[in-house]
Amino acid sequence: MIINNGITAPFGFKANGIWCGIKKNKRALDLALIYSSVSCNSAGVFTSNRIKAAPVLVTQNRIKDAKAQAIIINSGNANCLTGKAGISDAKAMAESVGKLLSLKRNEVLVASTGIIGKRLPVDKIKRAAPLLVKGLSKNAGQKVATAIMTTDTFAKEAGATFKIKSSKVVIGGIAKGAGMICPALATMLCFITTDAAIEKKALKKALKDAVNDSFNSITVDGDMSTNDMVIILANGLACNPVIKTGDKNYKLFHDALSSVCQDLAKKIIQDAEGATKFVEINVKNASSLAQAKLIAKKIANSTLLKTALAGSDPNWGRIAASAGASGADFRQEKLDIYLGDIRVLKNGRSTGVNYGRLKNIFDKKEIKIDLDLHNGKADATVWTCDLTENYVKINAGYSS
Amino acid sequence: MIINNGITAPFGFKANGIWCGIKKNKRALDLALIYSSVSCNSAGVFTSNRIKAAPVLVTQNRIKDAKAQAIIINSGNANCLTGKAGISDAKAMAESVGKLLSLKRNEVLVASTGIIGKRLPVDKIKRAAPLLVKGLSKNAGQKVATAIMTTDTFAKEAGATFKIKSSKVVIGGIAKGAGMICPALATMLCFITTDAAIEKKALKKALKDAVNDSFNSITVDGDMSTNDMVIILANGLACNPVIKTGDKNYKLFHDALSSVCQDLAKKIIQDAEGATKFVEINVKNASSLAQAKLIAKKIANSTLLKTALAGSDPNWGRIAASAGASGADFRQEKLDIYLGDIRVLKNGRSTGVNYGRLKNIFDKKEIKIDLDLHNGKADATVWTCDLTENYVKINAGYSS
Repeated sequence: MIINNGITAPFGFKANGIWCGIKKNKRALDLALIYSSVSCNSAGVFTSNRIKAAPVLVTQNRIKDAKAQAIIINSGNANCLTGKAGISDAKAMAESVGKLLSLKRNEVLVASTGIIGKRLPVDKIKRAAPLLVKGLSKNAGQKVATAIMTTDTFAKEAGATFKIKSSKVVIGGIAKGAGMICPALATMLCFITTDAAIEKKALKKALKDAVNDSFNSITVDGDMSTNDMVIILANGLACNPVIKTGDKNYKLFHDALSSVCQDLAKKIIQDAEGATKFVEINVKNASSLAQAKLIAKKIANSTLLKTALAGSDPNWGRIAASAGASGADFRQEKLDIYLGDIRVLKNGRSTGVNYGRLKNIFDKKEIKIDLDLHNGKADATVWTCDLTENYVKINAGYSS
Repeated sequence: MIINNGITAPFGFKANGIWCGIKKNKRALDLALIYSSVSCNSAGVFTSNRIKAAPVLVTQNRIKDAKAQAIIINSGNANCLTGKAGISDAKAMAESVGKLLSLKRNEVLVASTGIIGKRLPVDKIKRAAPLLVKGLSKNAGQKVATAIMTTDTFAKEAGATFKIKSSKVVIGGIAKGAGMICPALATMLCFITTDAAIEKKALKKALKDAVNDSFNSITVDGDMSTNDMVIILANGLACNPVIKTGDKNYKLFHDALSSVCQDLAKKIIQDAEGATKFVEINVKNASSLAQAKLIAKKIANSTLLKTALAGSDPNWGRIAASAGASGADFRQEKLDIYLGDIRVLKNGRSTGVNYGRLKNIFDKKEIKIDLDLHNGKADATVWTCDLTENYVKINAGYSS
């Protein structure tokens, strides 16, 4: 069963989102807090970018050993390439709510998204902290989903629930995208809460797997932004028997978490800047999962294919050419390509399907592209979108 | 001294370009022939795409051992993903002029560019062959440069000359770009002629080096199209002492060839679809050339930076983020970034230069971006362009 009420859905979590003045628009939210009434096991997946924003460095360090109980997040400023001052700012930002909530330093995690290279206006955050904490509520989950947005056009929430014996376990999540995500460096943030009782080790493994099958299937080449992070807090208040790796219950948790992450990942694509189409690329029968993913991502990031999708031009040669340029191992003599259900390439040779029939497929809002390599047994799926003139318009003036 | 008259500039070369009916527009040229009055040493660099068009496979095979005397090229059809029939078509295309010129099979090379997945109308080529051969002339070099164009807006020619003792050696070249070249899979074709007497081994090495410093500095990740090729024919009619690798004269040839290739490469960028800006990216003091190039190319291919360039938005955080996402080895604490002559990042920290001053730099038509890694002694330069709404417009409907 999918429930759609985000991070305050699991037992024991409250949240709040307010405007503190980082964004110019007073009607925009730019500061958010997620809080659990008890201390949580936590896990995180962080950007692989060599340039890491200050909050990434701080949170990555805190999450290693300690338990966590709160996450404070701002939008409008990435606190990135801000030197040692940026690190102090991130810590001060966490401390501003940590003190009010009587939490230990390491129990407060911190995240930022927005423009790179500007000092974080940490005084504004400090001044707003009492209001932020005071407003913590079960009903403010969507405010948090909204407060973490930059160029997103809608708040992205997801949830899942399952039972272990008589204990109902709930997982809730929110995410923000921005940019095209795929070849881009726009920040992707995701916060997940759950009342599951689960060992830290199992939590880490489940999160890593879920991210691979979701957010990493809409990003390319580890091409993550300087601020990307996915954080999960598990407070155990569902009082289920503690989930461990290898448990039969682990699979239940893993699958529920994966569904939440996939739901959020697809919403990010649906909200990609300027995008008008949702595209699923399936690469089948590759020699390995890595090879299948390599090809699928290369295709998903082809500027030429993305523009063809925008124009409903079924120029499938660009799909084949991208697959060939991926560096993956396959033989063109065995390659089949399908647009929707129509095979356009069989054994590396055009089937000569007429343009009109193919255009009908590319005219749709949801498009499926399948490649069969006949080269093994591994499959991979990647989700992407088209590249429109509107995307260029949006990104030609972001910082101004 | 730079002379600008392309492939018929060297002694003993003639050429012709005509319309044979592959392109719909009768005012467009779509078939070209380059011919040397004597047999030539030859060398080629071919696409690393796993999917290779039929003419690439045929020419790659022929160039290995045999000498060459002619190249026939068509535009409007890539003869790619056309199976065994495509190979026969490419051979028949070569034979159509080979017979008329009394050349051996392997002496005729063949190239194609255009739409993927359609059978080459080889009958049209056969019918046009007599006209093509009959019109061979010293004055038709620019017709060839025009006949190989697809979405190019101007013909690209270059040339260089130097002396070895009393022998004047001439190198002439033409190229076509298309698409944005950089992250794209548009075909890049380049044909170079020279009257130099040069050993095949030296010719191969010089071509490979020149391509690395020119065309490979405007392409990414070996992300070449299915049809890319660079071919050089050297007929020896300059009667200079034969150039060998390690010779003092080899450097003269190498430098002249590099200048021709760089000139053509820059022209391809200047003619990139929808582009309004020419951008040079220099990465300095990297631990190795490969690392420097990795970073420069990653930045050059950032969709977000390219759109910022289009909008004259000096959003340099996107430069830093791309460098960090490249996978190359450097420390953010040592990174300096310059837009034009202004340092925006010093030791990984924003210098706080105001927006207006930076916008002035991004407003220009030629923009230089420098990164200093302080991490070694290797430098690399990559040329690229902006990504405009017009690019999307052009590519949204190419095959229709």
